[in-house]
Amino acid sequence: MDKPVRRFGRVVKAPENFLDRELIDEINTQGLDEQRRGFLRRSFLAASAAMAAGSALGQDRPAAVGDGDPHILTLPEHSRTLGRPVAAMPYGLPSKYEANLQRRESPGLTRVSAASVAFTPLQGLFGIITPSGLHFERHHQGWHDIDPSGHRLMINGLVRNPKVYTMDDLMRMPSVSRIHFIECGANTAMEWGNVAVPSVQYSHGMLSCSEFTGVPLSVLLEDCGYDKKTARVVLAEGADGSSMTRTIPLDRALDDVIVAWGMNGEMLRPENGYPLRLVVPGIQGVSWVKWLRRIEVGDKPYATKDEAIHYMDAMPDGSYRQYTSIQECKSVITTPSAGQRLLGTGFYNITGLAWSGRGKVKRVDVSVDGGRNWRTARLETPVLSKALTRFNIDWEWNGGPAVLQSRAIDDTGYVQPKINELRAVRGTRSIYHNNAIQSWQVAASGEVANVQVY
Amino acid sequence: MDKPVRRFGRVVKAPENFLDRELIDEINTQGLDEQRRGFLRRSFLAASAAMAAGSALGQDRPAAVGDGDPHILTLPEHSRTLGRPVAAMPYGLPSKYEANLQRRESPGLTRVSAASVAFTPLQGLFGIITPSGLHFERHHQGWHDIDPSGHRLMINGLVRNPKVYTMDDLMRMPSVSRIHFIECGANTAMEWGNVAVPSVQYSHGMLSCSEFTGVPLSVLLEDCGYDKKTARVVLAEGADGSSMTRTIPLDRALDDVIVAWGMNGEMLRPENGYPLRLVVPGIQGVSWVKWLRRIEVGDKPYATKDEAIHYMDAMPDGSYRQYTSIQECKSVITTPSAGQRLLGTGFYNITGLAWSGRGKVKRVDVSVDGGRNWRTARLETPVLSKALTRFNIDWEWNGGPAVLQSRAIDDTGYVQPKINELRAVRGTRSIYHNNAIQSWQVAASGEVANVQVY
Repeated sequence: MDKPVRRFGRVVKAPENFLDRELIDEINTQGLDEQRRGFLRRSFLAASAAMAAGSALGQDRPAAVGDGDPHILTLPEHSRTLGRPVAAMPYGLPSKYEANLQRRESPGLTRVSAASVAFTPLQGLFGIITPSGLHFERHHQGWHDIDPSGHRLMINGLVRNPKVYTMDDLMRMPSVSRIHFIECGANTAMEWGNVAVPSVQYSHGMLSCSEFTGVPLSVLLEDCGYDKKTARVVLAEGADGSSMTRTIPLDRALDDVIVAWGMNGEMLRPENGYPLRLVVPGIQGVSWVKWLRRIEVGDKPYATKDEAIHYMDAMPDGSYRQYTSIQECKSVITTPSAGQRLLGTGFYNITGLAWSGRGKVKRVDVSVDGGRNWRTARLETPVLSKALTRFNIDWEWNGGPAVLQSRAIDDTGYVQPKINELRAVRGTRSIYHNNAIQSWQVAASGEVANVQVY
Repeated sequence: MDKPVRRFGRVVKAPENFLDRELIDEINTQGLDEQRRGFLRRSFLAASAAMAAGSALGQDRPAAVGDGDPHILTLPEHSRTLGRPVAAMPYGLPSKYEANLQRRESPGLTRVSAASVAFTPLQGLFGIITPSGLHFERHHQGWHDIDPSGHRLMINGLVRNPKVYTMDDLMRMPSVSRIHFIECGANTAMEWGNVAVPSVQYSHGMLSCSEFTGVPLSVLLEDCGYDKKTARVVLAEGADGSSMTRTIPLDRALDDVIVAWGMNGEMLRPENGYPLRLVVPGIQGVSWVKWLRRIEVGDKPYATKDEAIHYMDAMPDGSYRQYTSIQECKSVITTPSAGQRLLGTGFYNITGLAWSGRGKVKRVDVSVDGGRNWRTARLETPVLSKALTRFNIDWEWNGGPAVLQSRAIDDTGYVQPKINELRAVRGTRSIYHNNAIQSWQVAASGEVANVQVY
């Protein structure tokens, strides 16, 4: 390391960088008492003016008074009263005005709610981190709030020393923290069959992105001494009642897979696998086994029910693609999106999400005319591998009809396909792995609808 | 762009990358029906074995049975029953077993809770994202849940076109999303006076890190036509009753300051300024004005009460440093930390946080012997400018006494100082800007305590 800078030591009345010296001297030459007097005078005048304004406008009139007049800002009740104390909510919650932004189950999508989906409201979210309270849910036999003191993780099979770990054991081990998206393999499934669902929550909401913390699976496999000659796969098993088991190839298990307890800074939520789940970056959600209780090292794929009956791609010729688990590059505009309504003509910020199970998003293009012309969007930083990437682009709406689309390109050079390109190869019998370009149609009324554009 | 890769089009029974071809063929040659039979046979055997194990062990015995025996994993109740449905909590919450992890007010720290602090429980958190429900609070006159439909932001002063914006106006504008830490200038204040508070929650818990989304302040200042000849500062004003007003120099206001509505993907929480707060990266929390309702462009600092009476650094000679708002490079070990107890000798993952208001963290060193020897910790990615950085390092505890310290170095070359180095220059009358190295002493019993090491 070069010569260290020791900046704590400078004794100055003026700040170092925050305001420039000349400005500060104007204040500092007056001395503190003078400043105090200055403050009191200033704040008295401000308060008088504010009260006068409030009085003239009528204190109980709605705060909307003054809109458009740049000289009037009303003084609402909360500017004149004592608010609620700290720790009034030891664990905080969203504003009561945001109650409509919640996870929603699609009625009739599945027979029972314990084996169903609750979708993330992407249309109301910002950035790349999904609030844990709005993380999508997909359960196969419901969720439980498992006591972590009784939870165990067994590692067995082709290992020299099979072990059973407590949570305390695991949380002492070397840990990593990484931001990754998780997407259900069946996300956007309805669009295969020309069913244009009414909002991005239902079309793309089996998608979330969080910072996960845990011990790399490779550390545990080494700890148990997996058989380097015969081991080819691991089987991950959950502790719920659904016999959820998924095969993961050994090279991937040794790469970036995490046995995670942390999500967005705190312990996993019960619906997301508390106290332990597998994080398999870039791979469809079903492999991110929740309530993880066992890893078995094996020499061939297990072909479990969720590999041999579900989560296979039905092809037009009657065959099935199996173990197609990587979530290919995909994107979607979240605002404006179906079910929303533009407030009038003029400037809008078009915003959305892009991701790739192969690596980083390299570029996102946006079209407002159904794919005839494309402009390149701004990507918000950080752009991370196998994580959501937020894009934004300016748009001036002239009031005419428009079809909004986004098209993502990842760092392997793969380009997100159009729906007809995808159908030409995959047919329409599929449930899984629809990563087609999504189209939102803006009507002259400002209403936005889900349409399919070929 | 180079030749695009079109990977959606390959029709294969075997997967592309996820499992290798040879392994897949073993399954695919059998055909689906055989696979189904295989699955059914396999799962029947597994269930029988599991039920037998559960029965032999007694189903109601605690799950701890089998600990240490790698051949026994009990089958708890939740593995045999239907769980709760999706969207049982449309807005999710932590497990009931995590109820102890909450924001806490330090009793007696301030006279009233409406002008007090609730600390973030850093000792129980992972990664760099602070869950919004645990974001620290510091209020000057309490908090309100403000109706966003009535909230306004005025921009006035030295501008050509003063304006009053609605939330709808703002949220149509070009937005950015960035991850930044926020730290109260008074964080770690008690340590100035040798008051070793009992845990990292109380010593360093006025610290959080989130992804913020909003419109750059520069965009709004341009929109209103600020006077490029005379403007030198902006004054930010909150809508609570505390007359919270802070001066920000124009060059910073035009740089990375955001007028934010989003925090960790959703709208700001009421305690954190819903629906609008200022984000001033690298600067102490008091300048991140909550419930932001006015920006006034001026030609000199305003010396408001929170600039002229509070938030000044008392120096040993009786003078005060004013506007010292940058949060210098700092770090702290969050686990193990004071109030925790090691579970026994052996391996531990020492983990903590580092940050700098000047830019990125370049390196974190960790000592387990009170600063005599140092090792370099692993930094988790992403390492972002003016954001928390998570560090981890291995430690084998031999059962003897130890003093754990971390020392951060930022990309300007600045090295976090020892407390005696800081006191030699700044004295002990300060409240603000204590960024000294923190020491945690591990006793032979495993108990960890806050100590001051010189």
